[in-house]
Amino acid sequence: MKLVRYGQAGREKPGLIDANGKLRSLAAVVPDIGAQQLGAAALARLRKLDPARLPLVRGKPRLGCPVAQVGKFIAIGLNYADHAAEANAPIPTEPIVFLKATSCIQGPDDPVMLPRKSVKTDWEVELGVVIGTRARYVSRKDALSHVAGFCVVNDVSEREYQLERGPQWDKGKGCDTFGPIGPWLVTADEIANVQRLDMWLDVNGQRMQTGNTRTMIFDVARLVSYVSEFMTLLPGDVIATGTPPGVGLGMKPPRYLKKGDVITLGIEGLGEQRQEVIAFKA
Amino acid sequence: MKLVRYGQAGREKPGLIDANGKLRSLAAVVPDIGAQQLGAAALARLRKLDPARLPLVRGKPRLGCPVAQVGKFIAIGLNYADHAAEANAPIPTEPIVFLKATSCIQGPDDPVMLPRKSVKTDWEVELGVVIGTRARYVSRKDALSHVAGFCVVNDVSEREYQLERGPQWDKGKGCDTFGPIGPWLVTADEIANVQRLDMWLDVNGQRMQTGNTRTMIFDVARLVSYVSEFMTLLPGDVIATGTPPGVGLGMKPPRYLKKGDVITLGIEGLGEQRQEVIAFKA
Repeated sequence: MKLVRYGQAGREKPGLIDANGKLRSLAAVVPDIGAQQLGAAALARLRKLDPARLPLVRGKPRLGCPVAQVGKFIAIGLNYADHAAEANAPIPTEPIVFLKATSCIQGPDDPVMLPRKSVKTDWEVELGVVIGTRARYVSRKDALSHVAGFCVVNDVSEREYQLERGPQWDKGKGCDTFGPIGPWLVTADEIANVQRLDMWLDVNGQRMQTGNTRTMIFDVARLVSYVSEFMTLLPGDVIATGTPPGVGLGMKPPRYLKKGDVITLGIEGLGEQRQEVIAFKA
Repeated sequence: MKLVRYGQAGREKPGLIDANGKLRSLAAVVPDIGAQQLGAAALARLRKLDPARLPLVRGKPRLGCPVAQVGKFIAIGLNYADHAAEANAPIPTEPIVFLKATSCIQGPDDPVMLPRKSVKTDWEVELGVVIGTRARYVSRKDALSHVAGFCVVNDVSEREYQLERGPQWDKGKGCDTFGPIGPWLVTADEIANVQRLDMWLDVNGQRMQTGNTRTMIFDVARLVSYVSEFMTLLPGDVIATGTPPGVGLGMKPPRYLKKGDVITLGIEGLGEQRQEVIAFKA
């Protein structure tokens, strides 16, 4: 299933995308797509529905983050060997874990807003993993059974805030609008092999990032298992699993986003995002 | 006012502590103590109540975190000059900002659980700042008007996870049970000068930390203003503002928590916490 949340920001309704790519409402079936809907039993109930009998949603409503009330937005640093090289960083011997402020989460096509005076805002296409059931000290073997599904994440990053203003990255990772998630939460059963997904990101139509989840240093199962050693993963938590090469920081000279730029990005089977870059507004 | 949330974990009810130290129920007045109750108008309505007419709560119920559904648990590193020295770190030129996973939040007297095989779990008494109204790019002068109140936080930290397994600290800061908050949310009007509060922490009755918020490198107004440059602060967000000297990491040799230890800590006017240290359990 491709689950979505559509409508005005903060008032999204649950829906799904049917086999013909049409948006169908789930509003009469579930109150939202959140922690209560992500467990195996709850997803199985949704899967039994006949999409053709769900109301068709007219028009092209805005899409929000496909998961309501994400509790933790966890991110993994330098998880593609080539990206570590372009960032001039050693290949990690174990996953680097940081947190993105949940207030940065937005819909897949909402504008990305440059912080006031920001000159080093950068892009990062990433595979997002949505937790379906509570996970604490889970083995690598069992890890994927705790995953509800996958989505595209743009781990937008202000490199000056991240790297030049303190030893901790969170400052440059959680700015408002820095967490586009979606368009869909694609349930795990629809993805034959999560470690064989092509991914890409363009700025103004020019290809910047090209990658495949096959080149992750630590795969999804390892990441879920690893993070669960440090904290309990809860339904609705999202893990952004690192970015392949091609970020602005790695170019010579570095290239960063400016007002009016358009970012488009996508992952095989998980849909596409499109963000216009805008100046700060209160 | 001293606002509290009491009862079973996950099912806390709102209450307040009256002038005689008695717990009174607010359950008939507000659904909880959360974002909706922390703005100036909402607090003013609570302040108009006559505590003597609120139902007395019998017994000694467990206290939870005094703020429901904390959205962001932000923390400041090395914000006391003496602590920076004992941690062998330079005095920061601007605040160091990191995030604690919200899943680590618990009541003030709930046990602190050592992660499996953890040998370097440490304590940190900190002043917690609870945001009352949305704040983005607020000036230092206006910053305190966005603060609902203050509380005690124990910023429990696993030093191996924080410092030896990463470059990022979040791994050692957000383990389950590593965020005791409370006992009370003391509204800002009750604190004459938040930069003149004594604070202390004992392990097994032995004094470890002694400090005063006067020796912060960056004061509360500066911190709220500063963090609001990077992300929107929302009602119910909590900022832990750094710890004074006396953590286990700074001792020669370092001393860490072990099963059976009892941590007690407090801040002038904000109450006390007590945690028993327990081994990991699923």
